[in-house]
Amino acid sequence: MADADTPFVHNAWYVIAESREIGRAPIARTVLGHSVVLFRAQGGAAVALQNRCCHRSFPLVHGRVEGDTIVCGYHGLRFDTGGRCVEIPMQKSVPSAVRVRAYRTVEKGAFLWIWMGEEESADETALPHQEWMSHPEWDTCGGYLHVKGSYVHLHENLLDLSHLSFLHAQSFGTPEYARAPVETKIEGHDIQVWRHVECRLPPIYAEPLGWVGTRARRSSGSQFVAPGLHVNTGIFRNLDGPQDSAPVLPTVKVAQLITPETQHSTHYWYVVARNFARGDVATSDFMLEQQMAAFSEDVLALERITELSLLEGTCQVQQISLPTDKAGVLMRRHLKSLAELEQH
Amino acid sequence: MADADTPFVHNAWYVIAESREIGRAPIARTVLGHSVVLFRAQGGAAVALQNRCCHRSFPLVHGRVEGDTIVCGYHGLRFDTGGRCVEIPMQKSVPSAVRVRAYRTVEKGAFLWIWMGEEESADETALPHQEWMSHPEWDTCGGYLHVKGSYVHLHENLLDLSHLSFLHAQSFGTPEYARAPVETKIEGHDIQVWRHVECRLPPIYAEPLGWVGTRARRSSGSQFVAPGLHVNTGIFRNLDGPQDSAPVLPTVKVAQLITPETQHSTHYWYVVARNFARGDVATSDFMLEQQMAAFSEDVLALERITELSLLEGTCQVQQISLPTDKAGVLMRRHLKSLAELEQH
Amino acid sequence: MADADTPFVHNAWYVIAESREIGRAPIARTVLGHSVVLFRAQGGAAVALQNRCCHRSFPLVHGRVEGDTIVCGYHGLRFDTGGRCVEIPMQKSVPSAVRVRAYRTVEKGAFLWIWMGEEESADETALPHQEWMSHPEWDTCGGYLHVKGSYVHLHENLLDLSHLSFLHAQSFGTPEYARAPVETKIEGHDIQVWRHVECRLPPIYAEPLGWVGTRARRSSGSQFVAPGLHVNTGIFRNLDGPQDSAPVLPTVKVAQLITPETQHSTHYWYVVARNFARGDVATSDFMLEQQMAAFSEDVLALERITELSLLEGTCQVQQISLPTDKAGVLMRRHLKSLAELEQH
Repeated sequence: MADADTPFVHNAWYVIAESREIGRAPIARTVLGHSVVLFRAQGGAAVALQNRCCHRSFPLVHGRVEGDTIVCGYHGLRFDTGGRCVEIPMQKSVPSAVRVRAYRTVEKGAFLWIWMGEEESADETALPHQEWMSHPEWDTCGGYLHVKGSYVHLHENLLDLSHLSFLHAQSFGTPEYARAPVETKIEGHDIQVWRHVECRLPPIYAEPLGWVGTRARRSSGSQFVAPGLHVNTGIFRNLDGPQDSAPVLPTVKVAQLITPETQHSTHYWYVVARNFARGDVATSDFMLEQQMAAFSEDVLALERITELSLLEGTCQVQQISLPTDKAGVLMRRHLKSLAELEQH
Repeated sequence: MADADTPFVHNAWYVIAESREIGRAPIARTVLGHSVVLFRAQGGAAVALQNRCCHRSFPLVHGRVEGDTIVCGYHGLRFDTGGRCVEIPMQKSVPSAVRVRAYRTVEKGAFLWIWMGEEESADETALPHQEWMSHPEWDTCGGYLHVKGSYVHLHENLLDLSHLSFLHAQSFGTPEYARAPVETKIEGHDIQVWRHVECRLPPIYAEPLGWVGTRARRSSGSQFVAPGLHVNTGIFRNLDGPQDSAPVLPTVKVAQLITPETQHSTHYWYVVARNFARGDVATSDFMLEQQMAAFSEDVLALERITELSLLEGTCQVQQISLPTDKAGVLMRRHLKSLAELEQH
Repeated sequence: MADADTPFVHNAWYVIAESREIGRAPIARTVLGHSVVLFRAQGGAAVALQNRCCHRSFPLVHGRVEGDTIVCGYHGLRFDTGGRCVEIPMQKSVPSAVRVRAYRTVEKGAFLWIWMGEEESADETALPHQEWMSHPEWDTCGGYLHVKGSYVHLHENLLDLSHLSFLHAQSFGTPEYARAPVETKIEGHDIQVWRHVECRLPPIYAEPLGWVGTRARRSSGSQFVAPGLHVNTGIFRNLDGPQDSAPVLPTVKVAQLITPETQHSTHYWYVVARNFARGDVATSDFMLEQQMAAFSEDVLALERITELSLLEGTCQVQQISLPTDKAGVLMRRHLKSLAELEQH
C-alpha cells in the first residue's frame, strides 16, 4: 500500500492556492515536487506555469508580469499564458521549442485546482470540487496548515476517526468514538466510513447548537473522494429534545484539500461548512478556532510519525493493520495502484 | 577496522539512561539508531519498549502511562511492560501479533543498561557494570555529554592517552605523557594500555591530594571493557614525601559509558570515582568541573573530525596507524568483527 | 556540457586566499571539496597542506604553528612545510609514509593560487594571473562573495552579458545590452565575447568619468581565461565630446577569481581595475560599492537557480541554449572535457 515513499499520483486535481492569493504579482508554490509560478492575466484568469525558465533555470517568480506575459528576471525571455516564449531579447525569432509547461487549472469557489499529470488526460469532469464548499445555503470558514509529513498519512488519518478518542481527547473527540461500530461503504473508488455514537457533543458543536450538556446522536462520515480531496460529515440529532422530524438535521461538512508538496510535506487546506447558526460571525470564529486546534493535533501527530520514520530509516517501518483500517488500507492500495499505473 | 560507517554491535549492553531520569512519565531515547520509550511500572521496574507503535508508527512517548501499561496517543492501543498489546479500543480481541518490542534491561547502581540485540543472546553475566561505580568505599561524581561523532572514535580516544599532552595541554594533560613508554596488555578481548610518568600532577589531582608542586609518579591505565564501557584508572605516588608503603595508593577510576545514538552521534556518560578526600563535597565539585572541561575537549576534537570527514566524504578518509595505536587498532578490529558476526 | 554535478577540474590554478589573509596563525579553506590549512613559514612563504592529519583525521588548523612546522592538536604529530611528518612524540623515528599532502602554491599580487591536481602536472606558466591586477598604472579595488551555487553557472553568467538588461536593470545594466549584436571570438580555449552599444552609461562609470547624461559608446568584453579566472573589460568613448583621438580610452578591467568550494558553493573574489580617476579614493569606494551591489544580484540569481534545482532534483533540469549562449556552451563543454580527461 502507498506510503511516504510511493511516487505521486499526477493524473489528479489538486488545490494549488486559494483564489484570493493569486494576483498580478507572481507567487511560487511547490506541488508534487515541482515549482509552479502563479499570476493573473489581465482578464483575471489564473495562469500556472513551470517556475523554472527553460533557458537557464532561473525561477520565473522573480521576474515581472507585463500584460498577459511574464518576463524572466535573468535574460528577459518572455512567456505568454500558454507557456510559449514570445520574445527573446537577444534574437529576432523564437523557436517553438522554447517554452515552459503551462498547467491546466480550474478556478472554482475559493480555490484554484491544478492538473500536474499528462495534459491529454486532464478531465475537468473529474474535478472533485463540491458545490456546498461555496453554496449560499452553507456558511463556511476555513484555513491552511503546512504539514511536514506525507499526504498518504493525512488521508489515512481522516478515514479512521477512531483516533478522535485519543489524539483529540482534549479538543473535539468523544470517548465513545473508538468503540463505536464502523460501517465501511465501498463503491468503486469512493471509500466511505460511518460511525454513529450517542454522546454529549464537544464544545465545537454543542455551543453553536445550544446543546451543552444535552445527549445527542453524532453520525460521522469520512469519505475519500480523490487524492486531492477528503470530505468529513457530521450529522447531529438532539436526543433530549422533542423528537420532531426535522426535515434537515444540523450538519457540518468539512472539505480537506490535500496537496502533496514533496514526499515528506503536504499543503492542507480545509473548509468547514455548516447549515446552522448561519450568518453568525461569532460562531464561524469559534468553530474555526476549535477546528484549527484539533487539526493542529493531527498535523503534530503526522510530523512526529515522519520524524521517527526518518530517524529510524523509512525502510524499516512495518505496520500492522486492524479491521478499522480497512478503508485506509483500500485507499492506500488505490493510491499505490494509481501511482504504478503512471509508471507505465 | 571499525569506523563511523561500520554497523553497530547489537549484542552488547549499553547504558540508555541514568536511573534518576526514569519515572512514570515516559521519555524517549535513541540507541543504535532505534528510538526507545522508557518509563517505570507501578512496582518501580524500568520498562523499555520500541517507541514506534506497531499500528501506525506513532511514537508511544507521546501517549499515556496507565498502571503497568502505556496507551498510544493516536488510536489508543495499550501495551503492557512486555510489549504485548492488551487492548485495541476498536475491537474486542487482540491478535498476538500486535506487539512492540520490549527490550531487556538491567538497572544497576545509577544506570539502566539495555540489550538491543537478539533477545535470546541477552546475557546478564556479560553486563560490564563495575562494582566500584556505586561502592561505598569510593566517592563518585559524574556527568553526561552528547557527542556529534562516532562511538568508535571515542573508544579510540580513550585507549590512546598520548593525546593528553596535546589536546589536554591546558586541562589535565602533562607534557611527559606523549613520550612515556606504553605497555599494552591483551587478554582475550580485554585490551589495556598502561603508562607511568614522573611529573607534577595537574590541578585536578594535585589540589585534592595537597600535592601542588610535588613530584609524583602517575600511572594511567586505559581499558576497553566492552562496546558500552571503557575504564580509565589513575594511580598516584608522592615522590617527594616519605616513601611509606601505603597499603592503598590514591586512585581515580573513571567509567566511560559509551552508547551509540546514531552512526554519527554518541551518548557519553562518565563516573569519576576516587578513594581519597572522601566525603568532601568541594573536592567532588572541583574534580567534576575539571573533568568536564577535559572531556569537553575530547568531544570538540571528535566533532571536528566528524565535520571534516563529512565535508570531504567519509570514503576518502584514510588513516595511518602508529605503534601507540596498537590497542586502538585491536579494539577497532574487534568491534568490526563483532559487527560482521551479527550480519550472518 | 558541464553542470553543477560535473566533477571538478583539478589540474588548474585557483585562488585560495588573499595574501593578506594568511599569517602565522593557521586558517582553513575548502577548495574543490578538500579542506586545506594555510599559514606562513618564518621566511614569509605561504604553506598549504592537507588539513586532515594523516593519523587520526584531526584538522591541523586547530593545531599550532611552531617555526616552520605545524603540530597537530590531537596527538602532536609535527609536519614541515612539505607535508613530511618530522616528529611523532610517541616514537623515536618517523616512517616516510607519514605525511600529509602539500599543495603547490604561487603567490602573486594580492592572491595566493593553489594547484589541487596532480603534483607533476603543476605548471606555473599556466598561472592565469594578469599583470594589470596589481600594476601601478591601474587603480584597483576588490572584494569577496560566497556563492551557494556552482562555479560553472558563475562562469556562464559572466560570459553572457545579455543579462545586464534584466538582472542588473537597477544597477549597472543598460536596456540596450540584450539586443546588441554579439561577437564571439574563439582561439583554442580562450573564449571571448564582445558587445558594443551606444547608450548613457550607468552611474558606476558615468559619475567617475564626469559623463552623466552624456552619450557614450560602451564596449564590453567577457573572457573565459581558465577554470579559475574570468576577465571582463569595459571600454568607453564619449560620443558627445570632441572626437579627439585619445591614445588610451577610459577602461575598466575586472578579474573574476572563481574557485569551486563544493559542488554547490563557490568562492568568488574580484578585482576592479581602472585607468582613470586614478589615485582618487572616493572613486574607488563608489565603484566598489556599485560593483558589489551588481555582483550581489548575480550571486542571488545563482543561489535561486541552485535552490530550485535542488528542490526539483538536479537530474530533471533540462536547458535550452540560445545563439547568445554559444560562448557559454563552448566553455561548459570545455570544462566537461577537462573533467573527463582527469577521470582517465
